[in-house]
Amino acid sequence: MSVTRELARYVVESRAEDIPADVRREARRAVVNIVGCMLGGAPEAGTGIAAGVFAPLSGPGTAGIVGRRERMDIARAALINGITSHYHDFDDTLPKNYIHASPPVAAALLAYASALPVSGADVLHAFILGFEVTSRIGNATYPAHYDAGWHSTGTCGVFGAAAAIGKLAGLSVDEMVGAFGLAATQASGIREMFGSMAKPFHAGHAARNGYESALLAKAGFTSGPRALEGPRGFAHVLAAARDLSKVTDRLGAAYDLRHNTYKPFPCGIVNHPAIDAAIQLHDEHAIDHAAIRAVRLEVAPLVIDLCGKTAISTGLEGKFSVVHGAAVGLVRGRAGLAEYTDDAVADPAVKRVRELAVRESDPAIGEDGVHLVVELADGTRLEKRLEHSLGNLERPLSDAQLSAKFTDQALRVLSTDAAERALAMAWTVDDLPNVADLVAATVPA
Amino acid sequence: MSVTRELARYVVESRAEDIPADVRREARRAVVNIVGCMLGGAPEAGTGIAAGVFAPLSGPGTAGIVGRRERMDIARAALINGITSHYHDFDDTLPKNYIHASPPVAAALLAYASALPVSGADVLHAFILGFEVTSRIGNATYPAHYDAGWHSTGTCGVFGAAAAIGKLAGLSVDEMVGAFGLAATQASGIREMFGSMAKPFHAGHAARNGYESALLAKAGFTSGPRALEGPRGFAHVLAAARDLSKVTDRLGAAYDLRHNTYKPFPCGIVNHPAIDAAIQLHDEHAIDHAAIRAVRLEVAPLVIDLCGKTAISTGLEGKFSVVHGAAVGLVRGRAGLAEYTDDAVADPAVKRVRELAVRESDPAIGEDGVHLVVELADGTRLEKRLEHSLGNLERPLSDAQLSAKFTDQALRVLSTDAAERALAMAWTVDDLPNVADLVAATVPA
Repeated sequence: MSVTRELARYVVESRAEDIPADVRREARRAVVNIVGCMLGGAPEAGTGIAAGVFAPLSGPGTAGIVGRRERMDIARAALINGITSHYHDFDDTLPKNYIHASPPVAAALLAYASALPVSGADVLHAFILGFEVTSRIGNATYPAHYDAGWHSTGTCGVFGAAAAIGKLAGLSVDEMVGAFGLAATQASGIREMFGSMAKPFHAGHAARNGYESALLAKAGFTSGPRALEGPRGFAHVLAAARDLSKVTDRLGAAYDLRHNTYKPFPCGIVNHPAIDAAIQLHDEHAIDHAAIRAVRLEVAPLVIDLCGKTAISTGLEGKFSVVHGAAVGLVRGRAGLAEYTDDAVADPAVKRVRELAVRESDPAIGEDGVHLVVELADGTRLEKRLEHSLGNLERPLSDAQLSAKFTDQALRVLSTDAAERALAMAWTVDDLPNVADLVAATVPA
Repeated sequence: MSVTRELARYVVESRAEDIPADVRREARRAVVNIVGCMLGGAPEAGTGIAAGVFAPLSGPGTAGIVGRRERMDIARAALINGITSHYHDFDDTLPKNYIHASPPVAAALLAYASALPVSGADVLHAFILGFEVTSRIGNATYPAHYDAGWHSTGTCGVFGAAAAIGKLAGLSVDEMVGAFGLAATQASGIREMFGSMAKPFHAGHAARNGYESALLAKAGFTSGPRALEGPRGFAHVLAAARDLSKVTDRLGAAYDLRHNTYKPFPCGIVNHPAIDAAIQLHDEHAIDHAAIRAVRLEVAPLVIDLCGKTAISTGLEGKFSVVHGAAVGLVRGRAGLAEYTDDAVADPAVKRVRELAVRESDPAIGEDGVHLVVELADGTRLEKRLEHSLGNLERPLSDAQLSAKFTDQALRVLSTDAAERALAMAWTVDDLPNVADLVAATVPA
């Protein structure tokens, strides 16, 4: 059986009761995290621009949008949810393939479930399957696909969104194969867009296109049956090297959700060790930032490759600047959403420290590690070496930390009471008779 | 100046009066051809499926669709126009890069112009620019991009659609650069889908995504400024080799529209020499197909690569089968839309000749040539060798042949009178005060 068909059959035949309890638990954590991220991204400028463009084009407003008052058709709501979910780069990350797997899947699912009565148990099950489809296609093509310049959150996420919606819509195996074909031929998103609104847009178009792929396939719109493994299929065309056995290896037994991580800081994950170390130094030594004379960051080469920006002027660019992360950590002792605004990037104190920071690429340092050295005016030399940063698999965010992260973001658009109510619903999503209630709970009054 | 910006500036600054008369004339021919193709694709099953899926999701029906009664929002109308324009593989082809450049550009433009008052002169100008953008990006990445498995009609067409809509919408140079970024990061479509409805869908999603890219950029949604030439931009990520100077070389002086071709047969262009030769033998010798005992086709290797299908059961698959093309030419003496239906593929006489045909790859034969040998029951050996087939640059379709091709397709949905009226408007598109009138003229009563 072809890889594409085997994956399709798994999605179609999976039963909720087959999913292990620990995977369901991790799925709930992922839902709490991603709904929080959508709330954090909902009031942003780029979200407003996209909503303004798509609202007049939207069909009847059957679907709600997390954190916003507009109602749109499901496809456009999925698109907006996708943009918000990835807007702050605050979403979940799979360290093994650098994919943010929840955004496209959850964006499509919440739009769909806001329009049609779907139970939380079904949504959580579909989410788990969509997440797994995304990550496994990522594993099979990593690192060649990502290294070439593809943003795999978008390119692999479209398959996950198609799988999740296809599951809820009751596609047959043939139809699911068809949906994967239509997803494959819409897979897109290049890393040249990093640092602009087009990056979160990738999660949006993956959600929208995945949803439409499932719908078209169910209606009988045909596609090539070998989307993943065909000689001109996704894996061969978009990855110089590939191992397709990873798509189906231990399907239904191994779950990548077990290896998902949640960010404490709203920026590229490779910046996190530097930020973590900077905050620790700030807190341990009560550093007065005016006294900082030199900052030296030793990081893995990938960090410079992904987040090497130095001359920056916008909050979005700041997300791709490891020196900005270190600067806000040292100056402010925190790196929340407020540290990734245009204002924060222009803050003279932050700017001064950012501009004197020197970054060195050191292949001996792991991608989750950092060596940070700070010199003060009085000659004091402070130093912090981390092997693992907060939020990674060795130091995962606790449920309480995830709740706090949710609330911080939710308060941008919701009252304290409303944020608390939405959080409680997100934690118990699989008990909800109708997930539309969760989406409704996130809409500002 | 970057390649992306230089291209954007050209599109923004181009004036209609700068376009040479021969290019305008060829643009009119392209419009006649592509509107005819939309009419031919309008009543097809795949079009109906897509229209059925998108109608309930569509915004207010501000836009008309060529050849169909539904009205949708511009984005969805562009998508459906794109599907119909490429449905029969009957559209125009650029021999230098195998791109069908008109479909995405015209699909977006006609949707846009059906909703807003736009003059024919402006639409023709925008069409010429969009066509040129598509083809030049194709030239810069050909052959590596196409050979890798990309369907460049979709991947390059999205830039052309963005350019054309961006021109009509009055984008600034910065905004046009932004539109190209959003187009680049939605560029998609793989050749694994050939032989399915997903292939014409590529022209549809390119049209829809190009339109939305222009709209988003105009509204201030940002993207990376080096869409084409950036290290993780379109050309580097989607082509193993590239020559970006071809994007801007002799911009405004050299026009690829001068090298556009129109197909006499609704299938992959590399099949055309075999079909042409078969029809010539059929006509010259009044062949009784029952007497055919052997058929031998010698063709360029690319023909087998692109159209080597032999065991086929659908009309769509027939488009990618050079032996089917030869069979209908020999059996029926023609290869129109009626020869690419499921019925025609199942026709016992056609099937018999198709199945006895032997195809040989011969590197000495050019991609526009063929050597066809037919043996009859009485031992007669008939032979036809072509260097160039009808419809190529050396033997272009005349205006009269283009009109006949238009009418053949238009009669599938329009009365004779209505078809004639629509044809006359298409030939004089740049005299129309409002192109919405042309689209309206194509809508069935």
